[in-house]
Amino acid sequence: MSDAEGNRAYGKKSFKRSKSHFADRVTADGRDGWPVEAGRYRLVVSRACPWASRAVVSRRLLGLEDALSMAIADPIQDDRSWRFTLDPGGRDPVLGIRYLGEAYEAREPGAPGGVSVPALVDVPTGRLVTNDYQRLTLDLATEWTALHREGAPDLYPADLRDEIDEVMAEVYKDVNNGVYRAGFATGQKEYAAACEGVFLRLELLSQRLAGRRYLVGDTITEADIRLFTTLVRFDAVYHGHFKCNLWKLTEDPVLWAYSRDLYQTPGFGDTVDFDHIKWHYYQVHTGINPTGIVPLGPDLSGWLTSHGREELGGRPFGDGSPPGPVREGEEVPAAGRP
Amino acid sequence: MSDAEGNRAYGKKSFKRSKSHFADRVTADGRDGWPVEAGRYRLVVSRACPWASRAVVSRRLLGLEDALSMAIADPIQDDRSWRFTLDPGGRDPVLGIRYLGEAYEAREPGAPGGVSVPALVDVPTGRLVTNDYQRLTLDLATEWTALHREGAPDLYPADLRDEIDEVMAEVYKDVNNGVYRAGFATGQKEYAAACEGVFLRLELLSQRLAGRRYLVGDTITEADIRLFTTLVRFDAVYHGHFKCNLWKLTEDPVLWAYSRDLYQTPGFGDTVDFDHIKWHYYQVHTGINPTGIVPLGPDLSGWLTSHGREELGGRPFGDGSPPGPVREGEEVPAAGRP
Repeated sequence: MSDAEGNRAYGKKSFKRSKSHFADRVTADGRDGWPVEAGRYRLVVSRACPWASRAVVSRRLLGLEDALSMAIADPIQDDRSWRFTLDPGGRDPVLGIRYLGEAYEAREPGAPGGVSVPALVDVPTGRLVTNDYQRLTLDLATEWTALHREGAPDLYPADLRDEIDEVMAEVYKDVNNGVYRAGFATGQKEYAAACEGVFLRLELLSQRLAGRRYLVGDTITEADIRLFTTLVRFDAVYHGHFKCNLWKLTEDPVLWAYSRDLYQTPGFGDTVDFDHIKWHYYQVHTGINPTGIVPLGPDLSGWLTSHGREELGGRPFGDGSPPGPVREGEEVPAAGRP
Repeated sequence: MSDAEGNRAYGKKSFKRSKSHFADRVTADGRDGWPVEAGRYRLVVSRACPWASRAVVSRRLLGLEDALSMAIADPIQDDRSWRFTLDPGGRDPVLGIRYLGEAYEAREPGAPGGVSVPALVDVPTGRLVTNDYQRLTLDLATEWTALHREGAPDLYPADLRDEIDEVMAEVYKDVNNGVYRAGFATGQKEYAAACEGVFLRLELLSQRLAGRRYLVGDTITEADIRLFTTLVRFDAVYHGHFKCNLWKLTEDPVLWAYSRDLYQTPGFGDTVDFDHIKWHYYQVHTGINPTGIVPLGPDLSGWLTSHGREELGGRPFGDGSPPGPVREGEEVPAAGRP
């Protein structure tokens, strides 16, 4: 999300996440002035960021690669925040900008709230449309349907939305955001409450997932995407850097198998770059890791081992099919692959 | 050891451990002016410190409690270093001092090198005798024999000293001190070299211990004590705080069973205070943990589970016997006990 999210936490003992400032929606009917349109928008992400990574996974599962291009920011921000230092000349080749902040400025000069990913940018004008990470992926699933690939799954099925929303709200509070509240707490009491909340919720989720392959229904939904993007980072950064260390993900047989199952499903693991994740967290949050040293561990070789979750049944893509190969130029190094 | 050991590391990218400044020996023949004598000396330790904890274990195994009294410092030092804030009135009841530094000053005013534990103090004069952590336990094993309990083990058998010394030298370099070099490195390259060294050596030790119960010979020796005091701290502080995180001790079946075997042997686990360990490392090293937050984890409940190492044979105490119960007032809370 934002480069400042860690540093903003200091001064008060507990961490509060800012709301997204720009909440326009890109919809099929274009009621906010932003109609769904192939090639018009650019999705700006960091592969380090769990909130942005939801959109990266959704885009793959839904087959939106041709309709919605993607810019990948450097995992290490500087004092002007997310930047395109990975691209030739340090500029995003489509938007022509060096910093994502330029699209924010084009939308609203001097806007408060910082520069965050995921961000949707209107390519013709270079203006930011939305940085509303909670809404963005739901809209990709429900408003962008005309541009979905053949066989795209329904990630937010109408008849399961109440249950999905309920699970996602609990996962958001205790897990997605809970790890940040633990990691950025500056008071022992606030840390302990957040850390306990993380593991209490993980234990409940582990029980829930012991007998069923996915969180809601028998197919992959938005709820799984949102849990996955935290779990895949758990041992790599939340366990040590954010001190969520009662146990490692690899020590909970159910959650570890669930995470590997998703990781090995096309559209999940093929979007995950553990180097971007580790370098971002350990180098950017100098308030909790002043040396900027990035740990060598954990050993990632287990991510591609068999998980046995097929036995639980479930139809990963429902009546649909898995996405095809990763688009050229968007490949990531795979954990556990030589 | 010293409160300043972390902070001294900054300014250069790799950590160098200082030598002990006071290296007088207490011997049977008193050749340095300090003869072995019951009740004359006081052993000052911190239960947080692995170097001091060697002496705490040796004193128990050898049954030196009556001959050599022990002062336990607060795990959190202040700017005057180790202090007796755990004792009534904040003073060590035997030496009558508030800070261990007072015994250093009494020995040599303005001595360089900082105040470290373990320290042996001459009770009649209040003067420090030695802070030589490498020599101290060997002398307890070999010079204090007249005061050993009936059935005390031989922790440094004459015919195995070459092998013990060789193993201890490797363990010191790569493990005991290796974790510090990893944790206090301020350069990525220096960190990575140290961390790799830790795990390469642990893998070799794991192989060595797969088929034998103890490191050298078939009984507990000084070599086991020195490896134990690092392994027992591994998951609690070195894994996260010092970034030695390729795997947890609990993930290596051999080393984890070896550690539990020793932990459950009288004289080892009954000296370990995980709270002292965690609070010391996480609160004192502000250069690597500026918030001072102490993690809730790891789960310690596994330390008392069965280890199966009896099947390897070995005679823990050789021709001797285990030590009796912990002295009243020296008990520690046990991990995994209700």
